[in-house]
Amino acid sequence: MPLLVQKFGGTSVATPDRIREVAEQVRLRRRSGDDLVLVVSAMGTETDEMLALARSVADRRSGREMDMLITAGERKATALVCMALIDHNVPAESLTGSQAGFITDETHENARILDIRPQRVLAALQGGRVPVVAGSQGVSTSNDVTFLGRGGSDTTAVALANVIEADACELYTDVSGVFTSDPRVVPTARRIGRLSYDEILEMTATGCPKPAMRSVEVARARGVRLHVRSAFTWEAGTWIGEEDPSMEQPLVSAVTHDISEAKITITGVPDRPGIAGALFRRLADLDVNVDMIVQNVSADGVTDISFTVPRRQLGISTQVTRDLGAEIGAGGVSEDTDIARVSLIGAGMKSNPGVAATMFEKLGERSINIEMISTSAIRISCVVRSEDVVQAVNVLHDAFGLAEAS
Amino acid sequence: MPLLVQKFGGTSVATPDRIREVAEQVRLRRRSGDDLVLVVSAMGTETDEMLALARSVADRRSGREMDMLITAGERKATALVCMALIDHNVPAESLTGSQAGFITDETHENARILDIRPQRVLAALQGGRVPVVAGSQGVSTSNDVTFLGRGGSDTTAVALANVIEADACELYTDVSGVFTSDPRVVPTARRIGRLSYDEILEMTATGCPKPAMRSVEVARARGVRLHVRSAFTWEAGTWIGEEDPSMEQPLVSAVTHDISEAKITITGVPDRPGIAGALFRRLADLDVNVDMIVQNVSADGVTDISFTVPRRQLGISTQVTRDLGAEIGAGGVSEDTDIARVSLIGAGMKSNPGVAATMFEKLGERSINIEMISTSAIRISCVVRSEDVVQAVNVLHDAFGLAEAS
Repeated sequence: MPLLVQKFGGTSVATPDRIREVAEQVRLRRRSGDDLVLVVSAMGTETDEMLALARSVADRRSGREMDMLITAGERKATALVCMALIDHNVPAESLTGSQAGFITDETHENARILDIRPQRVLAALQGGRVPVVAGSQGVSTSNDVTFLGRGGSDTTAVALANVIEADACELYTDVSGVFTSDPRVVPTARRIGRLSYDEILEMTATGCPKPAMRSVEVARARGVRLHVRSAFTWEAGTWIGEEDPSMEQPLVSAVTHDISEAKITITGVPDRPGIAGALFRRLADLDVNVDMIVQNVSADGVTDISFTVPRRQLGISTQVTRDLGAEIGAGGVSEDTDIARVSLIGAGMKSNPGVAATMFEKLGERSINIEMISTSAIRISCVVRSEDVVQAVNVLHDAFGLAEAS
Repeated sequence: MPLLVQKFGGTSVATPDRIREVAEQVRLRRRSGDDLVLVVSAMGTETDEMLALARSVADRRSGREMDMLITAGERKATALVCMALIDHNVPAESLTGSQAGFITDETHENARILDIRPQRVLAALQGGRVPVVAGSQGVSTSNDVTFLGRGGSDTTAVALANVIEADACELYTDVSGVFTSDPRVVPTARRIGRLSYDEILEMTATGCPKPAMRSVEVARARGVRLHVRSAFTWEAGTWIGEEDPSMEQPLVSAVTHDISEAKITITGVPDRPGIAGALFRRLADLDVNVDMIVQNVSADGVTDISFTVPRRQLGISTQVTRDLGAEIGAGGVSEDTDIARVSLIGAGMKSNPGVAATMFEKLGERSINIEMISTSAIRISCVVRSEDVVQAVNVLHDAFGLAEAS
């Protein structure tokens, strides 16, 4: 009998109606013969509401107390889902992170799982009850309540699926899977049937709903098959697993874009070792999430460095760059907020060097100027003007045949 | 250094502003040299909101899951109070019922405390931190989350005060203490400075804010001194403790009234043993909370029985009484919803038989008809017409000199 872990995100359990619908679907799924373990997030925007409450109560907010607060949201949702299940004649048992055996370190607000002791999960299953586990939480080695961070319910689900040897982990959300592009921008965007772990990890983009990065890394490390699907339509979604070496990989699986970044350029940087390291260390110490980095070829002993950062971190990033520039006698620092990133993602690129060339040609044909380029084995990203991004995404989606049924 | 347990009810922590005010008062109190342990209820109406949510999710609601749900409210409030304390430079540590060592039986929604192992509470105190304990909750002997029931935070506070040998237990609420009568009805009502456990236990009445009955019983059994006071004005309130035999007791401490009941009378009941027992057993089985019972002197082998029940339980109570009446061939059953109860409460009554006579005379002088009488050692209750109740309370409050400063 297949054993599945099903994780329901905040939108899937946002209202009493949604919770009852989840209960009904679980009832039907069990009747079809599957054994289920549920992992539940806090209802709708409850976590945000609790964060706002915390901000209005205290300026300095203890991490330990934030975790005690925030984890109450998942507990509530877990209890309500269980009540609905029992009301649908499905025996069920809610379990807090601690009761489900999640032992974590003491890093409050972003705890790491150290061990899982799923005895109560297994006992519930053996007793014919559906275990409903509160997502994103555990108990620390010093017996305090801990929170795994935003998106941590995905990690709970994947880690639990691994340790109880589930056949797959279903991640329910409000879209029906991962798409070849953002359907709001590319009308012909199509749901992808299958993706590799590496591909989904490259898909950090606007309009691309996807499992939390950390949970995919756990899934890849432990070989847990993921199924991203909708708790609104219940149709089959996108499977994520190992690359299948027996099948030919699609050249390009998706075209993604991101309009949330800005570009900083520092010119006239003396070309000597250690300067780039100093700059990005300072940014990292401020938790600035630097994405693309391009350094031009050195000429006359000086070089230019451009990099992108989240727009909300632009102010501090520019300041840090200017400070360093002054120290090392660089030429100048400039900001550019009118940029967008367009990326091609596809495991098939690894064995096909022509993809990048095609991408640049297609953009060039439309007079879309490429300002930065960055590549990995399975991703090519270009920075373009933000007013060009819709056209760029559509051109590439078309050029690589993504609208056709696979 | 005095050690105090302070319990803050839902209104005391209903908003971020209130929570910050509580934190500031705790800071001042500690500076004055007291050691404090806090017990916190859920914010404002949050428990009611969670009950409504549960009703909208499921018709049958598992007790185990209700407890998992409801206890999230106290945890949230506890974490927020701790954050505010830390923000006010008061080291603090939130503790769930389980972390505070409350071991309970498995009676969900109304669990009984079996044991308290307050090691973490004591460790926090020794470490200079204020322990902030989530009220009304514990962990059962089978490691499930349990709820002690509505008003259970008072019980948590009193039981904890006992086990850590606190000097007193302060119960903070939205009024400044227990009054000689309902100030909305009797303009000259005055806060009572001191009451005995027995007196407060008799004060089940409209407009009389008071600690949950169960917590007072625990306090009486364990000799925990209570101080009922306001978290809005912070002035000294009402102390509740043992009767002080060295002092003369006030004859009457308070005049209370209750307009929430209705009267049922069954006439022509065959006067043979077991009938009253059968009636009140059936009512008890339906959880009907019968208050006063009066049985008239038997005449001609038949008798009348009158009793009062909460108005909201009148329908079912009348039905049960009619059914039994039919079985035993009684005369008839009548309802009366226009009644009110007026009570005198005072430890001094025990040694002063004239109080009842004075009460009846004073009511008689105003032509207020007494329909039922019931007495205990320290309470005399009369049922009167509901339209007479305001006059009755004022007459008695005046007659026993309660408006004068004690």
